[in-house]
Amino acid sequence: MRQSPKILAFDIFGTVVDWHGSIVREMQALYPQVDGNAFALAWRAGYQPAMQRVRSGELGWVRIDDLNRMILDAMLPTFGLAHLSEAERQHLNRVWHRLDAWPDSVAGLLRLKTRYTLCTLSNGNIGLLTNMAKRVGLPWDCILSAEVFRAYKPDPATYLGVAKVFDVAPEQVMLCAAHHDDLAAARACGLQTAYIERPLEFGATQVKDVSPQAGNDFHARDVLQLAELLGC
Amino acid sequence: MRQSPKILAFDIFGTVVDWHGSIVREMQALYPQVDGNAFALAWRAGYQPAMQRVRSGELGWVRIDDLNRMILDAMLPTFGLAHLSEAERQHLNRVWHRLDAWPDSVAGLLRLKTRYTLCTLSNGNIGLLTNMAKRVGLPWDCILSAEVFRAYKPDPATYLGVAKVFDVAPEQVMLCAAHHDDLAAARACGLQTAYIERPLEFGATQVKDVSPQAGNDFHARDVLQLAELLGC
Repeated sequence: MRQSPKILAFDIFGTVVDWHGSIVREMQALYPQVDGNAFALAWRAGYQPAMQRVRSGELGWVRIDDLNRMILDAMLPTFGLAHLSEAERQHLNRVWHRLDAWPDSVAGLLRLKTRYTLCTLSNGNIGLLTNMAKRVGLPWDCILSAEVFRAYKPDPATYLGVAKVFDVAPEQVMLCAAHHDDLAAARACGLQTAYIERPLEFGATQVKDVSPQAGNDFHARDVLQLAELLGC
Repeated sequence: MRQSPKILAFDIFGTVVDWHGSIVREMQALYPQVDGNAFALAWRAGYQPAMQRVRSGELGWVRIDDLNRMILDAMLPTFGLAHLSEAERQHLNRVWHRLDAWPDSVAGLLRLKTRYTLCTLSNGNIGLLTNMAKRVGLPWDCILSAEVFRAYKPDPATYLGVAKVFDVAPEQVMLCAAHHDDLAAARACGLQTAYIERPLEFGATQVKDVSPQAGNDFHARDVLQLAELLGC
């Protein structure tokens, strides 16, 4: 095992919070006539292509709040919701600020916080991540975001940016995420990596393969087990 | 009184933490032959001129950690410390990460946190502010810094940047600071302002005039009284 990291940087959507379940619940409450599962999956499916338009330079810098809104506006007619008012659209778009944490996240992070500096490293914007953390009690020491680095993951500027912010070597930072592509990009920058299993990230109809892949320093069932593996 | 703010943005050095007392104590412990009071005042006196070299464009973007180090290196000979090794200089420079909070800060912030989103708005860099907060338990919801906006206070980009990050109007942000010039610049951007008395910011030999000035929305003896004034 390598030297213990100093900074744990967490991916957020899917890793720490359950975007799928939270959006399904919100849709059931607000628009029960809509298939919440299909709606959540469609919204999320627009995410990477939207960020790609920023990465390619087509859009300039646009925050996730605004990308989510662009995707939402485009998909509402498909789900019979073209009539939603501006206020209703704004409220629905802010569901990404109101995502619930996976049941183990807060307890696991509180344990990890006793020995490590915990930050977010998410493509979500700073305000979104702060509102989300305050609502459910995620105990970050620092909110870092693509917005700080003006670049979206997997741009190396994001992973290396964490090391620069804390004035440490890349290998003293560990990215913790439920996505192998995110972890692979971090590893290519010299970061340590921990995979966190989230088999239900896309809901019960699309169970995710969470089998271990080579290259990660740690593979944990959830954040509580990660705390155990890291001696907390 | 205006509408209640949503975001409280705190100045840090002098307002939340006692840089003078902390540096004096560190010098007494490490280099008791040096006049700690004069040393602390000299170091701080180099701060505004160093930032001015960044603001004017002479230096490009430089973080406070590096500005503090430039000032330190230049003043060490004056205090008979020209012999300090690179490791000793690095350690001493990090005293700015180890500043102690004023006795009321943590308790006052914990009360304010129940009703408001609390962030830093400091010229200190993100890593410095995070390490400082973790060491003494400052319960920020979010660390914002000149480093996020690539501009030093009193640049309007910093004050307006807080409002943009949280997607609120400038008047929904309140800057809380022990410095009237900082508050005046924030007010010019439309922020609400709260003055916090810190008569001993520069030590007992240079007691600061903390009498109220017109224009501030609140004037508080300390962070606990600010919590009281803001209904927490």
